[in-house]
Amino acid sequence: MSAGRRVKNVDGRTGKWVDVLRMPRAHTKHGGGEDDNIGTRWAVLIAGSNGYGNYRHQADVCHAYHIIKNGGLKDENIIVFMYDDIANNSDNPRQGTIINHPEGKDLYAGVPKDYVGEHVNAENFLAVLLGNNGSVKGGSGKVVDSGPNDHIFIYYSDHGGPGVLGMPIPPYLFANDFVEALKKKHSAGTYKEMLIYIEACESGSIFEGLLPKGLNIYGVTAAGAEENSWGTYCPGMNPSPPQEYLTCLGDLFSVAWMEDSEMHNLEIETIKQQYQLVRERTSDHSTYRIGSHVMQYGDIPLSREHLFLYMGSDPENANATSTPDNGIPEFFDEKEARAINQRDADLLYLWQKYKRSTENSLEKLEAQKQLVGMMTHRMHLDKSVKLIGKLLFGSERGPAVLNTVLPPGQPLVDDWDCLKTMVRIFEKHCGSLSQYGMKHMRSLANVCNAGISEDVMSTVSAEACGQIPFNSWSSLHKGFSA
Amino acid sequence: MSAGRRVKNVDGRTGKWVDVLRMPRAHTKHGGGEDDNIGTRWAVLIAGSNGYGNYRHQADVCHAYHIIKNGGLKDENIIVFMYDDIANNSDNPRQGTIINHPEGKDLYAGVPKDYVGEHVNAENFLAVLLGNNGSVKGGSGKVVDSGPNDHIFIYYSDHGGPGVLGMPIPPYLFANDFVEALKKKHSAGTYKEMLIYIEACESGSIFEGLLPKGLNIYGVTAAGAEENSWGTYCPGMNPSPPQEYLTCLGDLFSVAWMEDSEMHNLEIETIKQQYQLVRERTSDHSTYRIGSHVMQYGDIPLSREHLFLYMGSDPENANATSTPDNGIPEFFDEKEARAINQRDADLLYLWQKYKRSTENSLEKLEAQKQLVGMMTHRMHLDKSVKLIGKLLFGSERGPAVLNTVLPPGQPLVDDWDCLKTMVRIFEKHCGSLSQYGMKHMRSLANVCNAGISEDVMSTVSAEACGQIPFNSWSSLHKGFSA
Repeated sequence: MSAGRRVKNVDGRTGKWVDVLRMPRAHTKHGGGEDDNIGTRWAVLIAGSNGYGNYRHQADVCHAYHIIKNGGLKDENIIVFMYDDIANNSDNPRQGTIINHPEGKDLYAGVPKDYVGEHVNAENFLAVLLGNNGSVKGGSGKVVDSGPNDHIFIYYSDHGGPGVLGMPIPPYLFANDFVEALKKKHSAGTYKEMLIYIEACESGSIFEGLLPKGLNIYGVTAAGAEENSWGTYCPGMNPSPPQEYLTCLGDLFSVAWMEDSEMHNLEIETIKQQYQLVRERTSDHSTYRIGSHVMQYGDIPLSREHLFLYMGSDPENANATSTPDNGIPEFFDEKEARAINQRDADLLYLWQKYKRSTENSLEKLEAQKQLVGMMTHRMHLDKSVKLIGKLLFGSERGPAVLNTVLPPGQPLVDDWDCLKTMVRIFEKHCGSLSQYGMKHMRSLANVCNAGISEDVMSTVSAEACGQIPFNSWSSLHKGFSA
Repeated sequence: MSAGRRVKNVDGRTGKWVDVLRMPRAHTKHGGGEDDNIGTRWAVLIAGSNGYGNYRHQADVCHAYHIIKNGGLKDENIIVFMYDDIANNSDNPRQGTIINHPEGKDLYAGVPKDYVGEHVNAENFLAVLLGNNGSVKGGSGKVVDSGPNDHIFIYYSDHGGPGVLGMPIPPYLFANDFVEALKKKHSAGTYKEMLIYIEACESGSIFEGLLPKGLNIYGVTAAGAEENSWGTYCPGMNPSPPQEYLTCLGDLFSVAWMEDSEMHNLEIETIKQQYQLVRERTSDHSTYRIGSHVMQYGDIPLSREHLFLYMGSDPENANATSTPDNGIPEFFDEKEARAINQRDADLLYLWQKYKRSTENSLEKLEAQKQLVGMMTHRMHLDKSVKLIGKLLFGSERGPAVLNTVLPPGQPLVDDWDCLKTMVRIFEKHCGSLSQYGMKHMRSLANVCNAGISEDVMSTVSAEACGQIPFNSWSSLHKGFSA
């Protein structure tokens, strides 16, 4: 980047997007990586997906990087996981760039590529978090090498399902493994406080009944344990991405916290204020006509602190006030949907690709095949899970048993190893759950909760799915989700 | 309707949509059905499709009705064919109404339902045109009972394919049968001049090499013989229909001529002026980045006459000028596509339906099944036609033979009975061509042009399609397209 750079930012007074000329500057101790009271600020940013249809997750993460970088964090304390197949993807109309807002500037330039491609996986993520540089495979080798006074910010943007967060390379990250790692990190005494933001479908289930108080961790999730999270800035919405984009540019909860962080002085805005504003924006002003319930978990009192503790503070915003007096941009109006649930967002991309390609072209045929293939596999998964439930619990009770939601405060399942085993059994016989099928984790968890044995599950899965799939949806060649 | 009615209209000066209060009025002889010099004005308006995904065709036709009705034509001289499954369709957000513009008012009220449901068919259409009230089955029985001084306007809005126009009930209307009827009408001496507007994919092929000069017929088609025509005012476009609509509201050529007719004084605007303006609008200002080539056929000099001869003239527009000095609304800008080819428009509707329905709902599952079913059948048709070509003419030559386009001025095929036979053979073995499959008429015509016998075609179709389809795409239970 050149000495002065133009960036799009939300004007603190008008709430509109404006061009701002940022001058280079020395970071003060306020924004710096180290501070006597705050220790070092660390951040782990992860986009857990790949594929151009998931553009938005990597866009979210690139955006988050610039916010904390402008806040003063040093690259040596920021660890970025992104598959890195977006900026130079053949579908990307602006090669070599990534944007996170219809009028936004490039956010790809400058982002450290610590872990890309196959190195974006659950094992590396946990090793990085725990500071185990010996266990990390590939990538920059950077880990959260934090001390007892340090503050850690984790931001995860991806698809998810009950009890699980996606990864571009299987297996997925299961809630129990994530929370176990947090407990381990706490026992090691290698941080003072931690802030975790998670954007994913059913992201509340990652912490619900699992994240105890007392770890000095405050977790915020885009959605409750039983709902979708939402993509935004998608083709056909208002505002829409530039016409040449086939895909959503961001996620609803994610752009809400990031656009909020960019318009405020984070030295005076508290985490709680941001939580409230983001909750408002993500729920269509608490109407929930669209969007989801932003949730908080863990040590709630930590939210009284300033965002500054984790994200630093951009000197450009020194004169901005806190909230809510300087307003947030209106996100919804009654007439137009401005978000799409994440599971439909993949299809939106394929639909746009199909619709826009020339009749009789190979490209159109390919998009059509992919769309039909993806929808067919989804129907197959839905049908198979339903049938397994009926075979296990009877035609009448089956659906109710599978859909059982335990009371708030209880985790999805007690025996996570059982859940993982059931995932593998299902996938062996019925094909990969894939991104979409993560939604069925609750059903598989309830199979465990009902005490079904592996043998019975195997028999029934074989019966339900007839023949083991050998196409691209097979888990036998692409690996199991658990 | 009440005494005075508010309608949306294009302001002649600004080119913007404005509310106009129309007062009831007595028609002058200018707009009346009869006139010493003009004879009686007749009109046949037909929407040849059904299904909510084809909303736009019936919307076009309702709109056309109001234009000529406001122009002074009498209901006794206007014959409307529409399946009539739109206004009260369960998918229609404004029950009992039909609009043809995002800000348009209801156009359904008042439209005569001469031929609806199964009575919208090729046989009735031709009988009505020829004035054979003895041959008409069902409906109002109204026919074009015209005399030698009369002027006839025909407007057809539908899907089409090379040499064919759709009908909601099979068989389709083949170009030769249509043109034969026109010749017969001419021989009978029962009109002075005729104006025909056709909106359909490959609509140029209906007249190309078929409509002779000397019949006193001037025909305008939305597209050339080898291109799609386009739907417009669709979800996700700008302008978009009101948020609650899942479907396109109009067709590009159709709204172009109708919005033009509404903003001008048709006593001074010539047919040629309208042709030029509509051609400009339908082709994205002659760039053809999107849209199609509006074509003219038959007795071109007739286009020097005023539109008034066919459509009458709305006294409200008496002070409007002719064209082009009062401008047409800008239809495209460079950034946004404002049209979708008609064959994708059906899918757009199913996609919108899928996208907007609640996760895990029966409605969503149903939309998904329909979308997958329709796309799968399309791929099956494309693949089967291609394979038949290869089996008939060899792997290398096959595609070239099937795609052969004869020089301008030549019809698609000389032996139309052969074409119809080949359609039936194909459909027996491979399933219904359906709306989408009309695009393959050229391939089947070229099978005839190559002199392939029925027996060989049967053998090869059976070989290509393996087993006769018995699902909802079978022609055996829904009837053949020819």
